[in-house]
Amino acid sequence: MRMIGESDIEDIARGAALLGSGGGGDPYVGRLTAQAAIRECGPVTLLDVDEVPEDACVVSVASVGAPTVLTEKGCGYGEYRRLIEVTERYGGKKVFAIMPVEAGGVNSMLPIAAAARLGLPMVDADGMSRAFPEIQMVTFTIGGISATPIVYVDEKGNLGIIETITNKWAEKLCRAGTSVMGGSVICTEFMVTGEQLRTYGARGTVTESQRLGEAIRRVKDCGPGQTPEGNFLQFTGGSRIFSGKIADVVRETHDGFNWGHVMLEGIGQDKGRAARVDFQNENICAVVDGQIRATAPDLISLVDRETFTPVPTDAVKYGKRVLVAGLPCFHLWRTPKGLDIVGPRVFGIDADYVPVEQLCAPSRA
Amino acid sequence: MRMIGESDIEDIARGAALLGSGGGGDPYVGRLTAQAAIRECGPVTLLDVDEVPEDACVVSVASVGAPTVLTEKGCGYGEYRRLIEVTERYGGKKVFAIMPVEAGGVNSMLPIAAAARLGLPMVDADGMSRAFPEIQMVTFTIGGISATPIVYVDEKGNLGIIETITNKWAEKLCRAGTSVMGGSVICTEFMVTGEQLRTYGARGTVTESQRLGEAIRRVKDCGPGQTPEGNFLQFTGGSRIFSGKIADVVRETHDGFNWGHVMLEGIGQDKGRAARVDFQNENICAVVDGQIRATAPDLISLVDRETFTPVPTDAVKYGKRVLVAGLPCFHLWRTPKGLDIVGPRVFGIDADYVPVEQLCAPSRA
Repeated sequence: MRMIGESDIEDIARGAALLGSGGGGDPYVGRLTAQAAIRECGPVTLLDVDEVPEDACVVSVASVGAPTVLTEKGCGYGEYRRLIEVTERYGGKKVFAIMPVEAGGVNSMLPIAAAARLGLPMVDADGMSRAFPEIQMVTFTIGGISATPIVYVDEKGNLGIIETITNKWAEKLCRAGTSVMGGSVICTEFMVTGEQLRTYGARGTVTESQRLGEAIRRVKDCGPGQTPEGNFLQFTGGSRIFSGKIADVVRETHDGFNWGHVMLEGIGQDKGRAARVDFQNENICAVVDGQIRATAPDLISLVDRETFTPVPTDAVKYGKRVLVAGLPCFHLWRTPKGLDIVGPRVFGIDADYVPVEQLCAPSRA
Repeated sequence: MRMIGESDIEDIARGAALLGSGGGGDPYVGRLTAQAAIRECGPVTLLDVDEVPEDACVVSVASVGAPTVLTEKGCGYGEYRRLIEVTERYGGKKVFAIMPVEAGGVNSMLPIAAAARLGLPMVDADGMSRAFPEIQMVTFTIGGISATPIVYVDEKGNLGIIETITNKWAEKLCRAGTSVMGGSVICTEFMVTGEQLRTYGARGTVTESQRLGEAIRRVKDCGPGQTPEGNFLQFTGGSRIFSGKIADVVRETHDGFNWGHVMLEGIGQDKGRAARVDFQNENICAVVDGQIRATAPDLISLVDRETFTPVPTDAVKYGKRVLVAGLPCFHLWRTPKGLDIVGPRVFGIDADYVPVEQLCAPSRA
């Protein structure tokens, strides 16, 4: 157990945005939301997974929808309070703690804000150890755990609850509601027990986000023979995919998602080469000179070439110089069941999954 | 109080389909559903509105969606049971009786089937005294009564609940869920008290449906100087709009509705003239030779020229010979508040509402 104060937030948001693989929302907005809540209501208790009693109920608080919209829609105490009250009443269980469902600039921060405002502890875990666009794309789905009841509210005062036969159905129904409610809602989902959390949850994501955020902040502290890029790749365990200038961005917001791709012209050692990164909220596939270099479920993150700050898919724009890095995903995603849920074919990529560290190994580059 | 047995159903379904104004579902399917339920579980107690205690809770059971889809999706005891259980648990009230929300071939029958299977009484009333396509288009909306909580289920086992700030929002959210769930769901909506029902409900719709159904069945029993068409118009209080052969049908099923129009070539006394009837599930506007002859909220019903059986919008087809009749709507719909909810402009018709009996008066014909 430890406390998360206002000063911890910036690193957590930055690191979570890196794990967010382009999705999970704008870390600037997320940071302000969490900091304001802690400033008003005090620090948040962060529990280790092992500190959650076996049958205690932990529920995820998250925003669902397109990050471009989320950035313009805030939420406050009233929404969190109503969400938890209805979740407890409908689910028939007292909520012991809340947790993030994914890592991302906003979706790592909302649970902190909710925990601070509601006086509930937060668990140092999530259900992805990255961000994914759809509700069923959570490690708990591997364990056959239902995402529902999902309770969702908008900022106007509308509320919905769904109970579905599969988590894919939860995605369909919740997304339809999200689209109508203006493209973004906040929800509670995946009421899990302490035991389920220990078996299927991704442990320590909050602490890992903070470690990564701090590493990015210190990336230019170079010792002899070190370079910022080298430090970045070493701290994050990432593989170098491409350095380039953004030459084109196609982005559409519909059906509750941001869809599109980024075209990159190589710079530095990649001069003369071209790359493309496809996204559905999150970056899903990176291709260099026609060859796949990384796909989901591995993490594909664009970071600023100078500051190594993550650049989410809702902030990519023409002319920006970025490093495209690939990070290995959470181990459960690499199992056959995991790949059935978030493998490349799920996103329409006609290729088998190959781990990013193999695709980017020097011999194949 | 009286009992509704299997032999009452056919007339009720036929008359309800006439009041359905083209919508509310196929009366053949509706009839089979209600008859099977009564055969298995016994007759249904039909209560007069004045027999409902002041604070008793009455809830509507209805299908929401496109009639074309509804015809192919059945529902049984399990769905009704789950709907009422969740409605009672979530709404925090015991359901005293159920009622239809609208008159229509299916939506007048589903509540009978549900009442029979659940052993609950049904109230002889509804919230429209016709059918309308959208959830907020109910007389209770005039009284500021919320349509929510709405509980809806599909035949697969998915369930949703919504609570909204307005009934128009209920429509948007429920329609989005309906589209995703396959185009048609069954729901409970408008939990009203006995007192609210007496103030804003349309009394006696079930009995009126039965009277109209019986009248259509006997329409050819002509005394001296009588004609079937004359009898039909006299029994129904309807105005004659047009007699014609269906020359074209445009019908699309999307966004949870049937949309389209029917083009008619005049026959008999209308030979040489042309008419058009526009619909959104229900017939909304009838135009003869470019002149509006009836609009919502008045009822526009197409009936077979020989049998006077109502022809719903999901059954109109090329070559069919029909009489287009206009029936005056429930009195609350003609108030300013009523017209704000279901007047012609709500459906995109650029005209003020004029009662059908004036539009079709001999001097204007």
